[in-house]
Amino acid sequence: MKSQLTIFNTFSRQKEVFEPLNPPFVGMYVCGPTVYSDVHLGNCRTFITFDLVYRYLLHLGYRVRYVRNITDVGHLESDADEGEDKIGKKARLEQVEPMEIVQRYTNGFRQVMQQFNVLPPSIEPTATGHLMEQIEMVQKILDNGLAYEKNGSVYFDVAKFVQQYPHYGKLSGKVVDDLLQETRDLKRQDEKNNPADFAIWMKASPEHLMRWKSPWSVGFPGWHLECSAMSTKYLGEQFDLHGGGMDLQFPHHENEIAQNVGCCGVAPVRYWMHGNMLTITGQKMSKSLGNSILPHELFSGENKFMSQPYSPMTVRFFMLQTHYRSTLDFSDAALLAAEKGYKRLMNALQLLPELQHPGNTPPQMPDEDAAVQAACNALYDHMSDDFNTAMVLADLFELSGKINALYNKQLPPDALGLETFNRLQSVFPAFVQDVLGLADDTAAANNQLSDGLMSLILDIRAEARAKKDWPTSDLIRNRLNSLHVVVKDGKDGTTWTVE
Amino acid sequence: MKSQLTIFNTFSRQKEVFEPLNPPFVGMYVCGPTVYSDVHLGNCRTFITFDLVYRYLLHLGYRVRYVRNITDVGHLESDADEGEDKIGKKARLEQVEPMEIVQRYTNGFRQVMQQFNVLPPSIEPTATGHLMEQIEMVQKILDNGLAYEKNGSVYFDVAKFVQQYPHYGKLSGKVVDDLLQETRDLKRQDEKNNPADFAIWMKASPEHLMRWKSPWSVGFPGWHLECSAMSTKYLGEQFDLHGGGMDLQFPHHENEIAQNVGCCGVAPVRYWMHGNMLTITGQKMSKSLGNSILPHELFSGENKFMSQPYSPMTVRFFMLQTHYRSTLDFSDAALLAAEKGYKRLMNALQLLPELQHPGNTPPQMPDEDAAVQAACNALYDHMSDDFNTAMVLADLFELSGKINALYNKQLPPDALGLETFNRLQSVFPAFVQDVLGLADDTAAANNQLSDGLMSLILDIRAEARAKKDWPTSDLIRNRLNSLHVVVKDGKDGTTWTVE
Repeated sequence: MKSQLTIFNTFSRQKEVFEPLNPPFVGMYVCGPTVYSDVHLGNCRTFITFDLVYRYLLHLGYRVRYVRNITDVGHLESDADEGEDKIGKKARLEQVEPMEIVQRYTNGFRQVMQQFNVLPPSIEPTATGHLMEQIEMVQKILDNGLAYEKNGSVYFDVAKFVQQYPHYGKLSGKVVDDLLQETRDLKRQDEKNNPADFAIWMKASPEHLMRWKSPWSVGFPGWHLECSAMSTKYLGEQFDLHGGGMDLQFPHHENEIAQNVGCCGVAPVRYWMHGNMLTITGQKMSKSLGNSILPHELFSGENKFMSQPYSPMTVRFFMLQTHYRSTLDFSDAALLAAEKGYKRLMNALQLLPELQHPGNTPPQMPDEDAAVQAACNALYDHMSDDFNTAMVLADLFELSGKINALYNKQLPPDALGLETFNRLQSVFPAFVQDVLGLADDTAAANNQLSDGLMSLILDIRAEARAKKDWPTSDLIRNRLNSLHVVVKDGKDGTTWTVE
Repeated sequence: MKSQLTIFNTFSRQKEVFEPLNPPFVGMYVCGPTVYSDVHLGNCRTFITFDLVYRYLLHLGYRVRYVRNITDVGHLESDADEGEDKIGKKARLEQVEPMEIVQRYTNGFRQVMQQFNVLPPSIEPTATGHLMEQIEMVQKILDNGLAYEKNGSVYFDVAKFVQQYPHYGKLSGKVVDDLLQETRDLKRQDEKNNPADFAIWMKASPEHLMRWKSPWSVGFPGWHLECSAMSTKYLGEQFDLHGGGMDLQFPHHENEIAQNVGCCGVAPVRYWMHGNMLTITGQKMSKSLGNSILPHELFSGENKFMSQPYSPMTVRFFMLQTHYRSTLDFSDAALLAAEKGYKRLMNALQLLPELQHPGNTPPQMPDEDAAVQAACNALYDHMSDDFNTAMVLADLFELSGKINALYNKQLPPDALGLETFNRLQSVFPAFVQDVLGLADDTAAANNQLSDGLMSLILDIRAEARAKKDWPTSDLIRNRLNSLHVVVKDGKDGTTWTVE
């Protein structure tokens, strides 16, 4: 019996039983990256979190349509509809076409996701790929009387909206009256009826590079709009799950709800999920504090905070040790410990297929059998408890201990009953690989290993020759031959190649 | 002195000196895949060909904006504007959203390109991402009187167009009068004034899944239109290079020219390049003949035509052996030979940094020195001669011979002058890796190698123990320790892990 999946819903601030609208189908939307710079570790954590959600839903047998967008236009430097487009600015500084910036950082993002073994989403739509859908949505919101046009830009009328939808602000815990009475002294604000209003279409200034025709002006969509338009197109007006980083609750997600309600008359999302932030040795990670590390700097070891490189799988394991709703603190000591833990898990994974069971059904050690069954159940209980990966890892370590004990004969081969043995054989790798997405990256280490092993073999060979131990010397020659290893003795020493 | 780059221009049917419009900038467009199924080897050949063009232009110092599109809508089953949308059909059969089909095969395509070490283009735009641009282009062609609307679809008026542009048909070698007089008996044809006309906007039938609003109907763009719209947007109305497979000359590229001239009044492309097709053991490769192999089947060895798996780099090397304008024939014997050639090249690449030069400038063997200089020059001459990669490989093998001779001391270390030695050190890897894009994939083979080497070491260890040869046994233990290799002796034999 698998336990019921419960999810902490940011909207209600409580854990709720997950009941999809149209089982076995699940619609899931996650706000993807704005592709104007290298993806940072905080973003990676968010995407790994929702990769776990996606993987677990798939494991439970749901048919998930997972949409994670690419923001390639409309994300301005300031949340108050001010400043330059982040991508346009980068393109201007580098004197290239904005879409070249988009392509470069989209490629980089995909590469990092692949390194972290994050599954690609079912659909990865782009904001620029959905201009028509966004323009249509603006028109509908205007038609519904919840937006107004000024000087070619269109603003969402928050004051009017809250009269018909009382929940504006609930998701992010904002008090609407405070929002409406806030005063801001920024350029674009004088076009707004109220500072709480936000742009859904913006007229492009002459120097703005990315621009499209619309009924109101040659311009570009507001940042929040794309997610409303794309989730509606691919998942419908109402869908099951929406995720993102905690920093997106306001204004992004709050305004997404407003746009959807304003356009289609219905709140779009059943379960809102938000991942927490990163710190490094206790401090917020940020470029301005000079303590931010990029993924590739962590993998290569080229950073000033860590004593050694950490593989993508070690970092993924490390992230799983903390629940997604808690702050995660990066430190060398914690990553070192994670590396050990990850290797222990991989070792158990490698030993598991080597175990043999004699085939007799009743367990010889009923306590051990019960313990393995309990740990297998606990995997589901913990993962179903709002994706408690920290506890899932603890369960997996308990099972690793049993695997090691069986392998080392500390437990007899028939300690477990056949049924339990078979369950262990299927559930353990399923959770490690399919659900947690921990792949075995030790293959990469094998190149260095070959070098080390060959150096040892060549030393043994030299020693054997010196001792005139011809059988050993012949054994080495023949076996290296069969491995296509060619050894060359030169004036400056011995070298080898594979031919 | 580097030789002048010449390119065979399909439009003029002759080799022409390459003179970009705005040096050092080069604009280059290649028709990418229609993402409704796994990319086939013929497509891969095309993309590898233009990867070589892109890489060589970069190597020559050009700043290249390389646009390669993804066709995700509008490509119908028949070239005569008939049949279902290829992606829509697949989506209907699998009961998923068309964009899920697009995402799946786009991911697969990118993965195969990565395996073949094909550089990502500067911009990878999608047809669905440029609906507005396509609709604008249709409007302009209508405004220019070169298209007409019927029942919500818009057709390009070829008969009228050829009166003002006499070159329609020239690229593909078609006689316009034949095209205009051809009669076809197909459904959509009765809307056309002339069977040679082609759709630039199509009204969607009720069951058509992918559809957008336009001034003429809710519908979708004609397949040829996207390339005109995207090349104009990202490269301008006129740009340097346009590539694609030979099968795209008609109708796709012919109509692309017509649309651009019809919209902007100017022929878009300076140099048209087309890659030739594939055969397998002398026959056309096709699904219906049952002799088609997918890239992953070639890499895994799971196919009925080849005696063994071939790595992506072996296949890439194999393709380079034939000039891009010749037919390429896949056969086991040819691939086996390519594998040997590829390994020889990789071996020379590995040996090169180990060579040392004593530093005296005048060469001790002037003939050898001259031969190396000549081969280095030939690399540029041959690559600049319409990308003659077959000859470039021959030059590289000549240089490999010199590298081996220097390494094996068949040539003295100062056979070459220092200048020539340094040129060899820079030009050889630049051509192998940067220009030809041949990466060293022998790392993947290293895992198997480690297994083989450890098995040998464990046998030596067993033998040493049996002989009470404690020094050897201790040496092995200590060195394996330092490599973090843990050996476990069990009842059923000895195993090892890296911890």
